[in-house]
Amino acid sequence: MQNRLAIIAFTLMLPSGAFADAGSDLGSKVAQQGTPQGVAPCMSCHGADGAGIAPAGYPRIAGLDAGYLAKQLKDFRAGQRNNPVMMPMAINLTDEEISAVSAYYAGLPVPAPAAQPPVEAVDGAGLNLAQWGDWSQRGIPACDQCHGPGGNGIGPHFPGISGQHAGYIKAQLQAWKSGGRTNDPLGMMKTVADQLIDAEIDAVSAYYAALPGALPTPATNTPSLVASDKTVAAEDVVAGQVLQQGAPPAGRTPGSDGYFQSPGRKDLMDSPFDQVVLRGQAIFDNTNAHPTSSKYVGNDQACGNCHIDSGRLAESAPLWAAWVAYPAYRTKNQKVNTFIERIQGCFEYSMNAQASAAGGAPAANSDTIVSLVAYSFWLAKGAPTGDKTLPGRGYPRLQETELAFDPERGAVVYAAQCALCHGDDGAGVIYSDGTTLFPALWGADSYNWGAGMHKIDTAAAFIKHNMPLGLGDSLSDQDAWDAAAYMNSHERPQDPRHQGDLVATTEQFHGGRFDYYGQRNAADGSLLGERPSTR
Amino acid sequence: MQNRLAIIAFTLMLPSGAFADAGSDLGSKVAQQGTPQGVAPCMSCHGADGAGIAPAGYPRIAGLDAGYLAKQLKDFRAGQRNNPVMMPMAINLTDEEISAVSAYYAGLPVPAPAAQPPVEAVDGAGLNLAQWGDWSQRGIPACDQCHGPGGNGIGPHFPGISGQHAGYIKAQLQAWKSGGRTNDPLGMMKTVADQLIDAEIDAVSAYYAALPGALPTPATNTPSLVASDKTVAAEDVVAGQVLQQGAPPAGRTPGSDGYFQSPGRKDLMDSPFDQVVLRGQAIFDNTNAHPTSSKYVGNDQACGNCHIDSGRLAESAPLWAAWVAYPAYRTKNQKVNTFIERIQGCFEYSMNAQASAAGGAPAANSDTIVSLVAYSFWLAKGAPTGDKTLPGRGYPRLQETELAFDPERGAVVYAAQCALCHGDDGAGVIYSDGTTLFPALWGADSYNWGAGMHKIDTAAAFIKHNMPLGLGDSLSDQDAWDAAAYMNSHERPQDPRHQGDLVATTEQFHGGRFDYYGQRNAADGSLLGERPSTR
Repeated sequence: MQNRLAIIAFTLMLPSGAFADAGSDLGSKVAQQGTPQGVAPCMSCHGADGAGIAPAGYPRIAGLDAGYLAKQLKDFRAGQRNNPVMMPMAINLTDEEISAVSAYYAGLPVPAPAAQPPVEAVDGAGLNLAQWGDWSQRGIPACDQCHGPGGNGIGPHFPGISGQHAGYIKAQLQAWKSGGRTNDPLGMMKTVADQLIDAEIDAVSAYYAALPGALPTPATNTPSLVASDKTVAAEDVVAGQVLQQGAPPAGRTPGSDGYFQSPGRKDLMDSPFDQVVLRGQAIFDNTNAHPTSSKYVGNDQACGNCHIDSGRLAESAPLWAAWVAYPAYRTKNQKVNTFIERIQGCFEYSMNAQASAAGGAPAANSDTIVSLVAYSFWLAKGAPTGDKTLPGRGYPRLQETELAFDPERGAVVYAAQCALCHGDDGAGVIYSDGTTLFPALWGADSYNWGAGMHKIDTAAAFIKHNMPLGLGDSLSDQDAWDAAAYMNSHERPQDPRHQGDLVATTEQFHGGRFDYYGQRNAADGSLLGERPSTR
Repeated sequence: MQNRLAIIAFTLMLPSGAFADAGSDLGSKVAQQGTPQGVAPCMSCHGADGAGIAPAGYPRIAGLDAGYLAKQLKDFRAGQRNNPVMMPMAINLTDEEISAVSAYYAGLPVPAPAAQPPVEAVDGAGLNLAQWGDWSQRGIPACDQCHGPGGNGIGPHFPGISGQHAGYIKAQLQAWKSGGRTNDPLGMMKTVADQLIDAEIDAVSAYYAALPGALPTPATNTPSLVASDKTVAAEDVVAGQVLQQGAPPAGRTPGSDGYFQSPGRKDLMDSPFDQVVLRGQAIFDNTNAHPTSSKYVGNDQACGNCHIDSGRLAESAPLWAAWVAYPAYRTKNQKVNTFIERIQGCFEYSMNAQASAAGGAPAANSDTIVSLVAYSFWLAKGAPTGDKTLPGRGYPRLQETELAFDPERGAVVYAAQCALCHGDDGAGVIYSDGTTLFPALWGADSYNWGAGMHKIDTAAAFIKHNMPLGLGDSLSDQDAWDAAAYMNSHERPQDPRHQGDLVATTEQFHGGRFDYYGQRNAADGSLLGERPSTR
């Protein structure tokens, strides 16, 4: 408090003539000179380079996403983010000034971090939470899963946290936890922070503070969460699901249900076998971009998109349950499938291998398959062979509702709950190196019409138990059904079993009320499956 | 006893002139007229067709192996088989008469069985013992495994029992058990009969009595077990292992060690999956002759030859232990192998796939592999994934002895303990339909130089714990080592990794004192591996 008052006093002492000669555009003017309405120059506290002042608790703002910065300023202005220093200044900023200064700081280079992380943060809880989260016990996603690789941020909703001051990160986490800060989308940060103990908050803050920051991944297809310029009004949302800010949903608490637990990642040693398991995990997380497996992937999907927590999470078709259930007879192809054939099927459909560089799924003895097999086997260590009753296997079926499902209603749910990550256009977000940050849900880079996920019942079950990420089981059954119907009412790559005759393909491989292929019109009026999107 | 006395009285009443006009050769004369020394005609009791008389306890002898019949007569004559009716007659038979009458009855058609089996014998213990034995609990091999398909007999040591009278079979089993009959090779029947309860003896007797008999499979390459014409004298056998008759060895008792138990065969239903499991079992037992898999087998081997009891038996590299241990890193090929790659390796080496019709191992998605995978998975039902410490896995290593191993000593052990089934020439016995009854241990139809079994330590471990069949752990460690050395001192199909340079192949893939490839001379003086046998 002493620091804050000192700064307020300092800004009030600035001569008004200081506004005259600085930067030529509005953003730099606000940053360097303040505004005619008496707003102090941002640089007074955040520094000329936007690096902030760690001891004072002023965050680095240089290189953060402009949308994120603008939203924070507007939230300060509207009282949705509570801060005694920023609120009085934000009140005096115009929309134009907010946009300009946000763009200005977004365009500045990311400052180098001053801190070195404590060893324990890198080796222990900090690294773990950042890279893996704690799905099994507490349902906590990895920080990087939303904040992007290296914690550098994704679009306006997930700010860069790498190279941020440890004290600032820690203060925010404590504020989410205590309710002092509430402007997080869907209550995501509240949900996470509520479950962190102080030592974890310290560790993860130290971990990110010492990471060199980099520019965030842009995501311009996501909706605004600023109250005044929302694209979907809260009152439009069906069944009580609103675009929440701050109120954490009542989701499930994994780990409380006696689910099978895979070995810890730290149990992996340097043996040749463990190296293959590690490669399997990397391929699983990043199938479309990993150098070993990318040639077999014809879209922007990875195994981990449909199997959360790298295939570990119960109710998310966990690999440990699949491993002990295969080989098995599948009605889909009317034969007994080995585990390898099953994952080759994932490549053919969910990862649209036909459109890949290799032109098809990897062979049984390819590095990709062997690595994925080794990884799955390792995840299942100790699970009883042939046990198809393991709790949490597959996506637990969702009972149908009285209202049935409706893509029109689903569009509203989607805008409120899904577009935040997957975009208004369903195209997701791709990292500069080709890594999928948020997967495409329809269109050329999504799963094709042969994938299990195109079935509305399967998708509804997946969504109900796993979406939004980290908030599984927070949607109502109705919203999950409707969102699934909306998602699957869009065009996607052709079913590779299609021989040119849409009616024949529909009759042979599709049909039933959970399947829109060949039976429902896309937005352009064509039957779904009729005009497969091309990449 | 009453019946026996009645028959003796009957034979004594036959007019001696009855010898005059019957069959033109000696065998038929003895059978139909008896001998000048007063031996009654065999047909008096065994019938003109050799079908025997069930109520009197006289066995059918028509169509049995001549060597078997001759041995029995000589055993009666020598007092090694005890029977008050047969002994007095056999004493008066010459070697020539025995050979002739044995050949005569061996050449008669097999009579049709009179009996119908009780339903419970077919559905229950009778069928089970006949086809599967009870390896896991009591170490009992299937009757058919030695008596041949359908119980029709193999060579002189394993008589046909199909179509034999139930009362006779039962009496023999009780006699082995009580010690009343002791002329079984290696005490095999004593070992089995000792463990059967009366209800099982009744069931299996009824089962075989109702089976239509057929001619036995000849096996002329096996040693005589008749004392007077043994090829190996008991005093030649090292380390106390002799060609026993009647004294059961002190073997292990499976089931007492808490080994993992696979599901029962009767647990398999008619589901599409179970049908594939059943096909897998059939392929496993009969890889070289099964219509699905034979094209991938370039010798006369089947999976079941090295994995006893269809891959179920502990200490015999059971499949349930292998299933949960793969994928795994193998030094043999210096990579992680999936379970499928591992069994493809069995085809390449143990089953010499390079010389097969297909020219190589079956593909990962072939019916053969999928069936074997489904079968292995099913065998492992309930076993903990990744557990490499299951008791009974693999072939438990055998400690080296002070004497080390020596093929010369091994030749003596082999003659006494192994040649009975595998033949003096190691060529085994093949059934008329191509099925392997006893596998070849060397030569063109055996495993090739790349198979794990060519390593003397591996073979010694296998032999110690599993050979002779049903008498595992009865050989001394020394005998097991020596027999393994003898077996692997013979030529066999070339290592498929051989590129034409014996020294290079030896250096790259062989070497060490457990491997004779390229390092020891075969009988013809050539280095082993130098002149690969061709089929």
